[in-house]
Amino acid sequence: MKQPPEISISRVAVYLRFLEDYLKENGPQSTINSSQLAKFLNINHHQIRKDLSYFGKFGEPGVGYRADELKERISKILGLRKKWNLCLCGLGNLGSALFAYKGFKVMNLNIVAIFDSNPRKIGRTINQVKVYDPANMQGVIDKMGVNMAIIAVPTEAAQDTVDKLVRSDVRAILNFAPIKLSIPAGVKLRNVDLATELINLTYFLSSSA
Amino acid sequence: MKQPPEISISRVAVYLRFLEDYLKENGPQSTINSSQLAKFLNINHHQIRKDLSYFGKFGEPGVGYRADELKERISKILGLRKKWNLCLCGLGNLGSALFAYKGFKVMNLNIVAIFDSNPRKIGRTINQVKVYDPANMQGVIDKMGVNMAIIAVPTEAAQDTVDKLVRSDVRAILNFAPIKLSIPAGVKLRNVDLATELINLTYFLSSSA
Repeated sequence: MKQPPEISISRVAVYLRFLEDYLKENGPQSTINSSQLAKFLNINHHQIRKDLSYFGKFGEPGVGYRADELKERISKILGLRKKWNLCLCGLGNLGSALFAYKGFKVMNLNIVAIFDSNPRKIGRTINQVKVYDPANMQGVIDKMGVNMAIIAVPTEAAQDTVDKLVRSDVRAILNFAPIKLSIPAGVKLRNVDLATELINLTYFLSSSA
Repeated sequence: MKQPPEISISRVAVYLRFLEDYLKENGPQSTINSSQLAKFLNINHHQIRKDLSYFGKFGEPGVGYRADELKERISKILGLRKKWNLCLCGLGNLGSALFAYKGFKVMNLNIVAIFDSNPRKIGRTINQVKVYDPANMQGVIDKMGVNMAIIAVPTEAAQDTVDKLVRSDVRAILNFAPIKLSIPAGVKLRNVDLATELINLTYFLSSSA
Protein backbone atom coordinates (compact mmCIF):
# COMPACT_ATOMS: atom_id res chain seq x y z
CA MET A 1 0.00 0.00 0.00
CA LYS A 2 1.30 3.42 -0.97
CA GLN A 3 2.11 5.66 1.97
CA PRO A 4 -0.54 8.42 2.17
CA PRO A 5 0.72 12.01 2.30
CA GLU A 6 0.31 13.85 5.61
CA ILE A 7 -2.37 16.09 4.17
CA SER A 8 -4.50 13.05 3.27
CA ILE A 9 -4.16 11.73 6.79
CA SER A 10 -5.27 15.10 8.16
CA ARG A 11 -8.26 15.17 5.84
CA VAL A 12 -9.22 11.60 6.70
CA ALA A 13 -9.18 12.67 10.34
CA VAL A 14 -11.68 15.38 9.39
CA TYR A 15 -13.89 12.79 7.65
CA LEU A 16 -13.79 10.77 10.84
CA ARG A 17 -14.95 13.72 12.92
CA PHE A 18 -17.77 14.34 10.50
CA LEU A 19 -18.85 10.66 10.43
CA GLU A 20 -19.18 10.66 14.22
CA ASP A 21 -21.67 13.55 14.04
CA TYR A 22 -23.41 12.06 11.02
CA LEU A 23 -23.97 8.73 12.78
CA LYS A 24 -25.44 10.48 15.81
CA GLU A 25 -27.91 12.35 13.61
CA ASN A 26 -28.78 9.62 11.11
CA GLY A 27 -28.55 6.43 13.13
CA PRO A 28 -26.10 3.51 13.13
CA GLN A 29 -27.43 1.94 9.89
CA SER A 30 -26.98 5.05 7.76
CA THR A 31 -25.00 5.14 4.52
CA ILE A 32 -23.15 8.00 2.90
CA ASN A 33 -21.46 8.44 -0.47
CA SER A 34 -18.44 10.49 -1.41
CA SER A 35 -20.57 13.20 -3.10
CA GLN A 36 -22.51 13.76 0.13
CA LEU A 37 -19.29 13.81 2.15
CA ALA A 38 -17.91 16.28 -0.40
CA LYS A 39 -20.91 18.56 -0.08
CA PHE A 40 -20.97 18.55 3.71
CA LEU A 41 -17.24 19.14 4.02
CA ASN A 42 -16.78 21.39 1.03
CA ILE A 43 -14.03 19.19 -0.42
CA ASN A 44 -13.89 17.85 -3.99
CA HIS A 45 -15.29 14.28 -4.13
CA HIS A 46 -12.39 13.03 -6.28
CA GLN A 47 -10.12 14.20 -3.49
CA ILE A 48 -12.17 12.31 -0.91
CA ARG A 49 -12.08 9.07 -2.93
CA LYS A 50 -8.35 9.48 -3.51
CA ASP A 51 -7.71 10.09 0.20
CA LEU A 52 -9.71 7.01 1.21
CA SER A 53 -8.08 4.87 -1.49
CA TYR A 54 -4.77 5.05 0.39
CA PHE A 55 -6.42 3.13 3.20
CA GLY A 56 -7.99 0.31 1.16
CA LYS A 57 -11.23 -0.42 -0.65
CA PHE A 58 -14.29 1.25 0.82
CA GLY A 59 -17.96 1.29 -0.15
CA GLU A 60 -19.98 -0.14 -3.01
CA PRO A 61 -20.62 1.53 -6.39
CA GLY A 62 -23.97 3.33 -6.37
CA VAL A 63 -24.56 2.68 -2.68
CA GLY A 64 -21.72 4.47 -0.97
CA TYR A 65 -20.30 3.69 2.43
CA ARG A 66 -21.91 2.27 5.53
CA ALA A 67 -21.08 5.18 7.81
CA ASP A 68 -20.38 3.02 10.88
CA GLU A 69 -18.04 0.67 8.99
CA LEU A 70 -16.20 3.55 7.38
CA LYS A 71 -15.77 5.19 10.77
CA GLU A 72 -14.46 1.99 12.38
CA ARG A 73 -12.02 1.25 9.59
CA ILE A 74 -10.66 4.78 9.50
CA SER A 75 -10.29 4.81 13.29
CA LYS A 76 -8.40 1.56 13.22
CA ILE A 77 -6.11 2.58 10.37
CA LEU A 78 -5.32 5.91 12.02
CA GLY A 79 -4.37 4.10 15.21
CA LEU A 80 -7.26 5.47 17.24
CA ARG A 81 -8.49 2.14 18.56
CA LYS A 82 -5.43 2.06 20.78
CA LYS A 83 -4.90 4.26 23.81
CA TRP A 84 -1.97 6.62 23.51
CA ASN A 85 -0.04 8.08 26.41
CA LEU A 86 1.22 11.60 25.90
CA CYS A 87 3.51 13.82 27.88
CA LEU A 88 3.14 17.56 27.79
CA CYS A 89 6.39 19.57 27.95
CA GLY A 90 5.80 23.09 29.23
CA LEU A 91 2.92 24.23 31.43
CA GLY A 92 2.74 27.92 30.51
CA ASN A 93 -0.35 29.47 28.94
CA LEU A 94 -0.19 27.32 25.82
CA GLY A 95 0.58 24.13 27.74
CA SER A 96 -2.29 24.81 30.14
CA ALA A 97 -4.65 25.41 27.21
CA LEU A 98 -3.56 22.15 25.57
CA PHE A 99 -3.97 20.27 28.84
CA ALA A 100 -7.53 21.56 29.14
CA TYR A 101 -8.33 20.87 25.46
CA LYS A 102 -11.26 18.44 25.25
CA GLY A 103 -10.56 17.21 21.72
CA PHE A 104 -7.75 14.84 22.75
CA LYS A 105 -9.57 12.45 25.11
CA VAL A 106 -12.30 11.59 22.62
CA MET A 107 -9.54 10.34 20.34
CA ASN A 108 -7.96 8.14 23.00
CA LEU A 109 -5.08 10.59 23.45
CA ASN A 110 -4.31 10.93 27.14
CA ILE A 111 -1.81 13.27 28.73
CA VAL A 112 -0.31 11.18 31.51
CA ALA A 113 2.65 13.33 32.54
CA ILE A 114 3.63 17.00 32.45
CA PHE A 115 7.19 18.38 32.49
CA ASP A 116 8.01 21.93 33.53
CA SER A 117 11.26 23.35 34.84
CA ASN A 118 9.56 25.86 37.17
CA PRO A 119 10.24 24.62 40.75
CA ARG A 120 6.90 26.02 41.88
CA LYS A 121 5.07 23.80 39.39
CA ILE A 122 7.10 20.61 39.88
CA GLY A 123 5.31 18.16 42.17
CA ARG A 124 1.85 19.65 41.65
CA THR A 125 -0.98 17.41 40.48
CA ILE A 126 -3.62 18.73 38.04
CA ASN A 127 -6.65 16.53 37.33
CA GLN A 128 -4.65 13.53 38.54
CA VAL A 129 -1.68 14.29 36.28
CA LYS A 130 1.61 15.10 37.95
CA VAL A 131 4.10 17.81 36.99
CA TYR A 132 7.66 16.45 36.85
CA ASP A 133 11.13 17.94 36.67
CA PRO A 134 12.45 17.59 33.05
CA ALA A 135 15.69 16.30 34.60
CA ASN A 136 13.79 13.08 35.40
CA MET A 137 12.25 12.77 31.94
CA GLN A 138 13.61 9.39 30.93
CA GLY A 139 12.52 7.61 34.11
CA VAL A 140 9.03 9.14 34.04
CA ILE A 141 8.52 8.32 30.36
CA ASP A 142 9.54 4.70 30.91
CA LYS A 143 7.34 4.33 33.98
CA MET A 144 4.25 5.94 32.43
CA GLY A 145 4.63 4.25 29.03
CA VAL A 146 4.65 7.54 27.13
CA ASN A 147 4.45 7.15 23.29
CA MET A 148 4.05 10.76 22.20
CA ALA A 149 5.02 14.22 23.32
CA ILE A 150 3.73 17.74 22.90
CA ILE A 151 6.30 20.55 23.06
CA ALA A 152 4.89 23.80 24.42
CA VAL A 153 8.05 25.20 26.01
CA PRO A 154 9.58 28.61 25.16
CA THR A 155 11.42 28.65 21.81
CA GLU A 156 14.88 28.74 23.36
CA ALA A 157 14.18 25.55 25.35
CA ALA A 158 12.62 23.58 22.49
CA GLN A 159 15.73 21.91 21.02
CA ASP A 160 16.92 20.79 24.44
CA THR A 161 13.45 19.38 25.14
CA VAL A 162 13.29 17.46 21.88
CA ASP A 163 16.79 16.05 22.49
CA LYS A 164 15.72 14.81 25.92
CA LEU A 165 12.56 13.25 24.44
CA VAL A 166 14.52 11.46 21.72
CA ARG A 167 16.99 10.12 24.30
CA SER A 168 13.96 8.84 26.22
CA ASP A 169 12.83 6.92 23.09
CA VAL A 170 9.81 9.09 22.25
CA ARG A 171 9.33 8.74 18.49
CA ALA A 172 6.33 11.01 17.79
CA ILE A 173 6.41 14.69 18.73
CA LEU A 174 4.07 17.62 18.12
CA ASN A 175 5.93 20.93 18.36
CA PHE A 176 4.29 24.30 18.98
CA ALA A 177 7.51 26.30 19.39
CA PRO A 178 8.09 28.45 16.27
CA ILE A 179 11.49 26.96 15.46
CA LYS A 180 12.86 24.26 13.14
CA LEU A 181 14.04 21.43 15.40
CA SER A 182 16.69 18.83 14.54
CA ILE A 183 15.68 15.23 15.02
CA PRO A 184 17.27 11.91 14.07
CA ALA A 185 15.77 9.64 11.39
CA GLY A 186 12.96 7.42 12.66
CA VAL A 187 11.41 10.15 14.78
CA LYS A 188 8.24 11.85 13.49
CA LEU A 189 8.04 15.54 14.27
CA ARG A 190 5.04 17.67 13.37
CA ASN A 191 5.19 21.43 13.70
CA VAL A 192 2.14 23.56 14.35
CA ASP A 193 2.86 27.05 13.08
CA LEU A 194 0.10 29.37 14.21
CA ALA A 195 1.25 32.28 12.04
CA THR A 196 1.06 30.08 8.93
CA GLU A 197 -2.61 29.47 9.64
CA LEU A 198 -3.21 33.20 9.53
CA ILE A 199 -1.43 33.61 6.20
CA ASN A 200 -4.29 31.87 4.42
CA LEU A 201 -6.44 34.69 5.77
CA THR A 202 -4.12 37.54 4.75
CA TYR A 203 -3.94 36.02 1.27
CA PHE A 204 -7.74 35.73 1.11
CA LEU A 205 -8.24 39.36 2.13
CA SER A 206 -5.51 40.62 -0.23
CA SER A 207 -6.67 38.67 -3.26
CA SER A 208 -10.36 39.45 -2.82
CA ALA A 209 -9.97 43.14 -1.96
CA MET B 1 -4.35 33.22 -12.53
CA LYS B 2 -5.61 29.96 -11.07
CA GLN B 3 -6.57 30.21 -7.39
CA PRO B 4 -3.96 28.28 -5.37
CA PRO B 5 -5.27 25.62 -2.96
CA GLU B 6 -4.99 26.42 0.76
CA ILE B 7 -2.29 23.82 1.24
CA SER B 8 -0.08 25.55 -1.37
CA ILE B 9 -0.53 28.86 0.42
CA SER B 10 0.48 27.23 3.70
CA ARG B 11 3.55 25.69 2.09
CA VAL B 12 4.53 28.96 0.42
CA ALA B 13 4.34 30.54 3.87
CA VAL B 14 6.85 27.93 5.02
CA TYR B 15 9.15 28.76 2.07
CA LEU B 16 8.95 32.39 3.16
CA ARG B 17 10.00 31.54 6.69
CA PHE B 18 12.90 29.55 5.34
CA LEU B 19 14.00 32.30 2.92
CA GLU B 20 14.21 34.79 5.77
CA ASP B 21 16.68 32.55 7.62
CA TYR B 22 18.55 31.70 4.41
CA LEU B 23 19.07 35.38 3.58
CA LYS B 24 20.41 36.07 7.06
CA GLU B 25 22.95 33.26 6.69
CA ASN B 26 23.93 33.70 3.04
CA GLY B 27 23.67 37.44 2.47
CA PRO B 28 21.25 39.59 0.48
CA GLN B 29 22.69 38.64 -2.97
CA SER B 30 22.29 34.90 -2.54
CA THR B 31 20.43 32.66 -4.97
CA ILE B 32 18.61 29.42 -4.37
CA ASN B 33 17.02 26.83 -6.66
CA SER B 34 14.03 24.62 -6.09
CA SER B 35 16.18 21.52 -5.54
CA GLN B 36 18.02 23.25 -2.71
CA LEU B 37 14.74 24.46 -1.24
CA ALA B 38 13.43 20.91 -1.59
CA LYS B 39 16.41 19.46 0.24
CA PHE B 40 16.33 21.97 3.08
CA LEU B 41 12.59 21.66 3.59
CA ASN B 42 12.22 17.97 2.82
CA ILE B 43 9.54 18.64 0.19
CA ASN B 44 9.51 17.30 -3.37
CA HIS B 45 10.97 19.92 -5.79
CA HIS B 46 8.14 19.40 -8.31
CA GLN B 47 5.76 20.32 -5.52
CA ILE B 48 7.73 23.48 -4.76
CA ARG B 49 7.75 24.59 -8.40
CA LYS B 50 4.03 23.83 -8.69
CA ASP B 51 3.25 25.81 -5.52
CA LEU B 52 5.25 28.82 -6.73
CA SER B 53 3.72 28.64 -10.19
CA TYR B 54 0.35 29.71 -8.76
CA PHE B 55 1.94 33.02 -7.89
CA GLY B 56 3.56 33.81 -11.23
CA LYS B 57 6.91 33.23 -12.96
CA PHE B 58 9.91 33.01 -10.65
CA GLY B 59 13.57 32.39 -11.24
CA GLU B 60 15.71 31.64 -14.28
CA PRO B 61 16.48 28.18 -15.69
CA GLY B 62 19.81 26.87 -14.38
CA VAL B 63 20.27 29.80 -12.00
CA GLY B 64 17.34 29.52 -9.65
CA TYR B 65 15.81 32.30 -7.64
CA ARG B 66 17.32 35.45 -6.19
CA ALA B 67 16.39 34.75 -2.58
CA ASP B 68 15.58 38.36 -1.73
CA GLU B 69 13.33 38.87 -4.75
CA LEU B 70 11.53 35.62 -4.14
CA LYS B 71 10.98 36.60 -0.53
CA GLU B 72 9.63 40.04 -1.45
CA ARG B 73 7.29 38.75 -4.10
CA ILE B 74 5.92 35.98 -1.90
CA SER B 75 5.42 38.44 0.96
CA LYS B 76 3.56 40.81 -1.26
CA ILE B 77 1.35 38.15 -2.83
CA LEU B 78 0.49 36.70 0.56
CA GLY B 79 -0.56 40.15 1.75
CA LEU B 80 2.23 40.49 4.29
CA ARG B 81 3.45 43.91 3.16
CA LYS B 82 0.32 45.39 4.68
CA LYS B 83 -0.34 45.70 8.38
CA TRP B 84 -3.31 43.68 9.62
CA ASN B 85 -5.34 44.45 12.68
CA LEU B 86 -6.62 41.44 14.57
CA CYS B 87 -9.00 41.06 17.44
CA LEU B 88 -8.70 38.16 19.84
CA CYS B 89 -11.96 36.72 21.17
CA GLY B 90 -11.45 34.92 24.47
CA LEU B 91 -8.67 35.53 26.97
CA GLY B 92 -8.54 32.15 28.69
CA ASN B 93 -5.42 29.99 28.65
CA LEU B 94 -5.41 29.56 24.89
CA GLY B 95 -6.22 33.22 24.19
CA SER B 96 -3.43 34.31 26.55
CA ALA B 97 -0.99 31.97 24.81
CA LEU B 98 -1.97 33.34 21.41
CA PHE B 99 -1.65 36.91 22.65
CA ALA B 100 1.88 36.18 23.85
CA TYR B 101 2.81 34.30 20.64
CA LYS B 102 5.78 36.01 19.00
CA GLY B 103 5.22 34.64 15.50
CA PHE B 104 2.42 37.07 14.63
CA LYS B 105 4.17 40.44 14.92
CA VAL B 106 7.00 39.50 12.57
CA MET B 107 4.34 38.90 9.91
CA ASN B 108 2.68 42.29 10.40
CA LEU B 109 -0.22 40.68 12.25
CA ASN B 110 -1.13 42.85 15.25
CA ILE B 111 -3.70 42.07 17.90
CA VAL B 112 -5.29 45.47 18.59
CA ALA B 113 -8.32 44.49 20.67
CA ILE B 114 -9.34 41.64 22.97
CA PHE B 115 -12.90 40.58 23.79
CA ASP B 116 -13.81 38.58 26.87
CA SER B 117 -17.13 38.32 28.68
CA ASN B 118 -15.55 37.98 32.13
CA PRO B 119 -16.33 41.26 34.00
CA ARG B 120 -13.04 40.97 35.90
CA LYS B 121 -11.12 41.05 32.61
CA ILE B 122 -13.11 43.75 30.81
CA GLY B 123 -11.38 47.13 30.99
CA ARG B 124 -7.94 45.69 31.71
CA THR B 125 -5.03 46.65 29.45
CA ILE B 126 -2.32 44.11 28.57
CA ASN B 127 0.76 45.34 26.70
CA GLN B 128 -1.22 48.38 25.56
CA VAL B 129 -4.13 46.28 24.26
CA LYS B 130 -7.49 46.72 25.95
CA VAL B 131 -9.98 44.01 26.89
CA TYR B 132 -13.53 44.90 25.79
CA ASP B 133 -17.02 43.60 26.51
CA PRO B 134 -18.19 41.49 23.52
CA ALA B 135 -21.47 43.42 23.71
CA ASN B 136 -19.55 46.38 22.26
CA MET B 137 -17.88 44.37 19.51
CA GLN B 138 -19.16 46.23 16.46
CA GLY B 139 -18.16 49.67 17.73
CA VAL B 140 -14.69 48.54 18.80
CA ILE B 141 -14.04 46.73 15.52
CA ASP B 142 -15.04 49.81 13.52
CA LYS B 143 -12.95 52.14 15.67
CA MET B 144 -9.83 49.95 15.66
CA GLY B 145 -10.06 48.97 11.98
CA VAL B 146 -10.03 45.25 12.71
CA ASN B 147 -9.68 43.02 9.58
CA MET B 148 -9.31 39.60 11.12
CA ALA B 149 -10.36 37.72 14.21
CA ILE B 150 -9.11 34.80 16.27
CA ILE B 151 -11.71 32.76 18.14
CA ALA B 152 -10.38 31.21 21.35
CA VAL B 153 -13.61 31.17 23.36
CA PRO B 154 -15.17 28.02 24.90
CA THR B 155 -16.88 25.75 22.34
CA GLU B 156 -20.40 26.67 23.46
CA ALA B 157 -19.74 30.38 22.89
CA ALA B 158 -18.05 30.02 19.48
CA GLN B 159 -21.09 30.26 17.16
CA ASP B 160 -22.38 33.33 18.97
CA THR B 161 -18.93 34.91 18.68
CA VAL B 162 -18.63 34.21 14.97
CA ASP B 163 -22.12 35.62 14.38
CA LYS B 164 -21.15 38.84 16.19
CA LEU B 165 -17.93 39.07 14.16
CA VAL B 166 -19.76 38.60 10.87
CA ARG B 167 -22.30 41.28 11.83
CA SER B 168 -19.34 43.55 12.56
CA ASP B 169 -18.06 42.95 8.99
CA VAL B 170 -15.05 40.82 9.87
CA ARG B 171 -14.41 38.59 6.84
CA ALA B 172 -11.42 36.47 7.90
CA ILE B 173 -11.58 34.33 11.02
CA LEU B 174 -9.27 31.75 12.57
CA ASN B 175 -11.16 29.38 14.85
CA PHE B 176 -9.60 27.26 17.58
CA ALA B 177 -12.86 25.99 19.11
CA PRO B 178 -13.35 22.31 18.15
CA ILE B 179 -16.72 22.84 16.46
CA LYS B 180 -17.97 23.36 12.88
CA LEU B 181 -19.18 26.95 12.68
CA SER B 182 -21.76 28.29 10.24
CA ILE B 183 -20.72 31.34 8.26
CA PRO B 184 -22.24 33.20 5.31
CA ALA B 185 -20.62 33.17 1.85
CA GLY B 186 -17.84 35.74 1.45
CA VAL B 187 -16.37 35.08 4.88
CA LYS B 188 -13.19 33.00 5.16
CA LEU B 189 -13.05 30.73 8.18
CA ARG B 190 -10.06 28.58 9.00
CA ASN B 191 -10.26 25.96 11.71
CA VAL B 192 -7.27 24.83 13.70
CA ASP B 193 -7.99 21.36 15.02
CA LEU B 194 -5.30 20.39 17.47
CA ALA B 195 -6.41 16.76 17.72
CA THR B 196 -6.08 16.36 13.94
CA GLU B 197 -2.44 17.34 14.20
CA LEU B 198 -1.88 14.47 16.59
CA ILE B 199 -3.55 11.95 14.30
CA ASN B 200 -0.61 12.13 11.92
CA LEU B 201 1.45 10.91 14.85
CA THR B 202 -0.88 8.06 15.87
CA TYR B 203 -0.91 6.93 12.24
CA PHE B 204 2.88 7.08 12.08
CA LEU B 205 3.29 5.01 15.23
CA SER B 206 0.62 2.49 14.17
CA SER B 207 1.92 1.98 10.66
CA SER B 208 5.59 1.73 11.62
CA ALA B 209 5.11 -0.50 14.68
